[in-house]
Amino acid sequence: MRMILIPWILLLSSCSSSPSSPQFPKETGGDSANIAAPAPPVWSAPRLLRLQREAESRLRAEVRPKNCETWLKELTRLPHVAGTRRNQELSRWLANTLRQFGCQVEVHTYEVLLPFPLQVRVEMTAPTAYSATLREESLELDLDTAHRTILPFNAFTPDCDITAPVIYANYARREDFEQLRDLGIDCGGKIVLARYGRIYRGAKAKIAEEFGAAGLILYSDPADDGFVKGDVYPHGRFRPSSAVERGSILDISTCPGDPGTPGRPSLPGAEQLTFDQMSSLPSLPTTCISQDDARPILENLGGSGVPEGWQGGVPTTYHLGEDGTVRLRLQLEMDYRLRRIQNITATLTGLRAPDEVILVGNHRDAWTHGAMDPGSGTAVVLEAARVLAQAASRGQTLDRTVRFAFWDAEEFGIIGSTEYGEQFAEDLQKNCVAYINMDTAVSGSKLWMSGTPHLKSFAAEVLSSIPGEEQGRSLKDMMRDKQGAFRFGTLGSGSDYTVFLAHLGIDCLDLASGGATGVYHSVYDTYVFMKRFVDPGFRHHGRMAGTLLTLLSRLGRSQVLPLRFQDMADYVRASAEKLEQEDASLDLGEFVALSERIRKAGASIQQQVQGLVQKDMPLGLQLDLNRRLMGLSRRLLLKDGLARRPWYRHIFFAPHPDKGYGSDVLPGIRDALRTGDHALAQKEARRALAALTDYVRGLEELELFLSGK
Amino acid sequence: MRMILIPWILLLSSCSSSPSSPQFPKETGGDSANIAAPAPPVWSAPRLLRLQREAESRLRAEVRPKNCETWLKELTRLPHVAGTRRNQELSRWLANTLRQFGCQVEVHTYEVLLPFPLQVRVEMTAPTAYSATLREESLELDLDTAHRTILPFNAFTPDCDITAPVIYANYARREDFEQLRDLGIDCGGKIVLARYGRIYRGAKAKIAEEFGAAGLILYSDPADDGFVKGDVYPHGRFRPSSAVERGSILDISTCPGDPGTPGRPSLPGAEQLTFDQMSSLPSLPTTCISQDDARPILENLGGSGVPEGWQGGVPTTYHLGEDGTVRLRLQLEMDYRLRRIQNITATLTGLRAPDEVILVGNHRDAWTHGAMDPGSGTAVVLEAARVLAQAASRGQTLDRTVRFAFWDAEEFGIIGSTEYGEQFAEDLQKNCVAYINMDTAVSGSKLWMSGTPHLKSFAAEVLSSIPGEEQGRSLKDMMRDKQGAFRFGTLGSGSDYTVFLAHLGIDCLDLASGGATGVYHSVYDTYVFMKRFVDPGFRHHGRMAGTLLTLLSRLGRSQVLPLRFQDMADYVRASAEKLEQEDASLDLGEFVALSERIRKAGASIQQQVQGLVQKDMPLGLQLDLNRRLMGLSRRLLLKDGLARRPWYRHIFFAPHPDKGYGSDVLPGIRDALRTGDHALAQKEARRALAALTDYVRGLEELELFLSGK
Repeated sequence: MRMILIPWILLLSSCSSSPSSPQFPKETGGDSANIAAPAPPVWSAPRLLRLQREAESRLRAEVRPKNCETWLKELTRLPHVAGTRRNQELSRWLANTLRQFGCQVEVHTYEVLLPFPLQVRVEMTAPTAYSATLREESLELDLDTAHRTILPFNAFTPDCDITAPVIYANYARREDFEQLRDLGIDCGGKIVLARYGRIYRGAKAKIAEEFGAAGLILYSDPADDGFVKGDVYPHGRFRPSSAVERGSILDISTCPGDPGTPGRPSLPGAEQLTFDQMSSLPSLPTTCISQDDARPILENLGGSGVPEGWQGGVPTTYHLGEDGTVRLRLQLEMDYRLRRIQNITATLTGLRAPDEVILVGNHRDAWTHGAMDPGSGTAVVLEAARVLAQAASRGQTLDRTVRFAFWDAEEFGIIGSTEYGEQFAEDLQKNCVAYINMDTAVSGSKLWMSGTPHLKSFAAEVLSSIPGEEQGRSLKDMMRDKQGAFRFGTLGSGSDYTVFLAHLGIDCLDLASGGATGVYHSVYDTYVFMKRFVDPGFRHHGRMAGTLLTLLSRLGRSQVLPLRFQDMADYVRASAEKLEQEDASLDLGEFVALSERIRKAGASIQQQVQGLVQKDMPLGLQLDLNRRLMGLSRRLLLKDGLARRPWYRHIFFAPHPDKGYGSDVLPGIRDALRTGDHALAQKEARRALAALTDYVRGLEELELFLSGK
Repeated sequence: MRMILIPWILLLSSCSSSPSSPQFPKETGGDSANIAAPAPPVWSAPRLLRLQREAESRLRAEVRPKNCETWLKELTRLPHVAGTRRNQELSRWLANTLRQFGCQVEVHTYEVLLPFPLQVRVEMTAPTAYSATLREESLELDLDTAHRTILPFNAFTPDCDITAPVIYANYARREDFEQLRDLGIDCGGKIVLARYGRIYRGAKAKIAEEFGAAGLILYSDPADDGFVKGDVYPHGRFRPSSAVERGSILDISTCPGDPGTPGRPSLPGAEQLTFDQMSSLPSLPTTCISQDDARPILENLGGSGVPEGWQGGVPTTYHLGEDGTVRLRLQLEMDYRLRRIQNITATLTGLRAPDEVILVGNHRDAWTHGAMDPGSGTAVVLEAARVLAQAASRGQTLDRTVRFAFWDAEEFGIIGSTEYGEQFAEDLQKNCVAYINMDTAVSGSKLWMSGTPHLKSFAAEVLSSIPGEEQGRSLKDMMRDKQGAFRFGTLGSGSDYTVFLAHLGIDCLDLASGGATGVYHSVYDTYVFMKRFVDPGFRHHGRMAGTLLTLLSRLGRSQVLPLRFQDMADYVRASAEKLEQEDASLDLGEFVALSERIRKAGASIQQQVQGLVQKDMPLGLQLDLNRRLMGLSRRLLLKDGLARRPWYRHIFFAPHPDKGYGSDVLPGIRDALRTGDHALAQKEARRALAALTDYVRGLEELELFLSGK
């Protein structure tokens, strides 16, 4: 589901620098693989470290980009939407392939609510008649684009047959609707035409509904990812004029997963909520069209000229449409059914700590062929699984268990991973060391990583030990911002880490490599597109597999789990200060005080661990210590969840409701502030404080435990 | 000629804030017509002041916007290019009208080199054939647009018949060509396609030639003044897709006026230089086309994608064209002849100081109908002349003489005013108190004023005494920037003040009111356009006439000329510091020292003048003092002019050669620095210093003279 377009990249970067999200303190200067830097903390005995590094190099050397290509070809041979026959076939193919590698494979089946489009009609009835074709043109240079795909639609829209005047609302963000309101333009009862981009499409639907819209039509503006940005496919990487961005509008900021079973797995036969009980189900009729189909509407819209920055790239002067010249009829008919989906997991059991599980996941369903989204990630995870399984068959097993997961129905609303997380909640909370997510692994050359603060330092350490493409520069060096600081994003939502992070309190990392493209969720996201414009030699795929293997190998072999608390202390302090700045009535001084206790205890723990790993640490102590470390993160959950959206339980991490993908800050408190409920904000602050205090106590107990060793 | 488009406004504002030009120190806070502010300096005896203010109010009350409309209708009835029969007819009409007002009218005839286009052909020969239509579409809603106009062309282009591949070069600024060069793209022997805007089109031609281009085609990009900015005419104020911006490419930064007689008037029979002696004549074949005619070229251009910011609004992905796919044939044939032009002057002789002349000017020739450029200015000056003549007929004559001038052939290269200035140089230097310029008086509602530092304080004082449209706010209040400072631009070139300022050393003011429009120099600059989209009630025309009358009345009645030296001291210091920042090898400390002497002597002079006007000052002393004041500005000229462009003689004011309209800083020194000639820069600095020292001595002598009174 994740959008690897420029807007997504902007969002990602805004995760660590926008006012909506606290910023990790900047680290400056540039170390590199070859330049001596102050020694990083060590999580294993020195005699093991060298061996571990050598093992990592061997794993990377085993990666074959050509394999990624072979797999991507098979994965993208046909469109494979969740719930369709082709996606079931691919589930069998994946299971067989992973078994051949030597993994223990399991198939987890769920029955979840998936809407398929029966009829989508967008007709202009005035001032002239025009009927949207909704047809993506086939290209001679890429015959895959002639395959039949699912009709362009927005999953989870309600049915409708409405006719109304049209208002143009730019990106349909809250600030866009507020600007319309300030101009005296009422969206009440109107069909809103808005361009894709900047925020999650589901957030657009939710905000448009709040401002009274009767319907929402989303289109891809060429200024955002089409010809204005560069040549369009098949001549370049940008969006052809007939391409449509499909996508879900499920309200994932309230709750991801099957809307009929929030908090419970949708095992076959499980009880489902009725439609009106489903809180994540959108109620605004919404659909999507191409630039070509938007053009006649934009050309005919009358009324005022648009505010600064609202003019897009369709060759006409944009207008707001409040004169009512243009009327549209929107007819949507969906086939809502419970459909079978399958997650595949493939396990390589660890040698010394088999109960400690590293989970790696990527979704496997696609809106069309899904070469970038998610095929590139599937191919990368497959190659990593092959290499790791082969090493295991030679006896080079990791100490911890690694489980590779291939989630289904992510595109509909992060459904497969959420149901899995809900089903195995207890086991995961007990045993899952970390979740590493991969989605659109390759849509360009720029490497991105996000994650929880506990793992930031570990991620930086791993990346700095992998050689980059330029001589003497590591991957980490490629990930610096203009000031030279390591870019490490905060997690919001929009991909499969959501349940593990925000519902189960498991530390997460998310990897991607991106660049500006324009075929997202259209029929043009094909193997040929990948081969011609993104990764001709599958080199970037290979690099991603190598990076994933290094992360797994180091995380799977560190004697002590490589969590670090300094970055957590920074994050806690920054979050509290950010929120205090926004609302002067809040006093979050206790958070700041706790952040200092985290810093202090964390430093002491790290020092003691450094001492312990110098001596040969007994395995029993390792297991005990790691179980205590792992447990700490779970303490950041609220038992009953956030007041306004109880499925989300983490005191720090939940998506921003007005953005959908981007991260919020202390979301329970912010949710209350958004509705001006200061009493609730105070209450949520106290609840978050209680959870954080518990976390700090755990940390201090750990410090005490270690000082006795 | 002046461009009142957004780019022009940007340039104007950049005049006082860009790095290319020193900035007047900011004044903050907001005084207004009704709020008591520290008393401004007084230039007349207190008993006269009140009478003068009342007289100004009466003059403003006499202004009839309806008259402006009547005159504009006549002026714009047909296209009236300089040198054509219609423009001669208008010269007679103007002379008669001014005579009827009661002015003494003179017609000054010159014979100047004016090229008219015989043939302009732009043909794409590969990859497909396309021939530019060069036809501006007629509009049913505005039948004036059906009139025959001069063929779209760039005046003073050489003839040619060339065929060459095409390179797209954005705005054809120096930085654009440098970027192409950095990308390894050679413009040598190519036809460069560039969009209009940002700098004077003649500067584009000069820079393109420097980078080896064989030809230059300029077009109007819709992102700059077309549909991307807003609705196009006849639905809005922006440029229709078939509209072409005509315009001169004479190198006015070397020398404006008839290129055959630099420094001498082109009186009938005057000796003309040969073509190869004319230093201001461009040598790069250049012509202009519409968006419609540029589109097939842009659509076919191959090669690399364009750098960030180079994509315009034509609906295609822009390319640089270095693969040579597109070839153009450019055929230009011009009819170069000496043609007759007529300046009209209309004089109202002053009562007490008839030898002191205030010159007011505006050009009267247009590329087409010229409703905004220059008709609005002509109408405003005519109305001011009518009101002032009528007042004189009632005995309310100003003390000084006012001469209204209507310049011809400005569009071809500021020709009429330059020849006049060259003819009457001695008389003007002796008697001209100030030159007030008006060009495109009305193209929107925003008021702009620029001028020499000596007059800044006077301009501010006048504007703060004229009520603005909002209750309690003066015109000056409408002219503040975001920080609340009074915006007062620095003069470069591009309109008729050039000869008076930079060749004769006369203090100047330049008035305009603007806004974003897109019909500049096209057939669509008509009365109907003005009436529908710019000034329906001719209210802005009326406001401009009132402002001009107030300036004239106060300047024409002040006992002592209202020059102030504080702003000059600031300007001298800022210029020196600016240049020192740019080039560390320069030491302009002596300029800074002189600026302090200006400040000191200026303050003393002002104090003494304040004392003198309190007593009844004898007329003889007034005349003596004013003649000394007037003479000061002339001392800022270099007898032999700037080393690299001797026609320009002012040590501070000349247009920036890479911009054309914008102002340069200490241009003699900068000219030398541009070619890396540090020895010349030192020499020019010494020459400028000598002139400035002479000016300061004059100031100090005046201080001494006054202290004896």
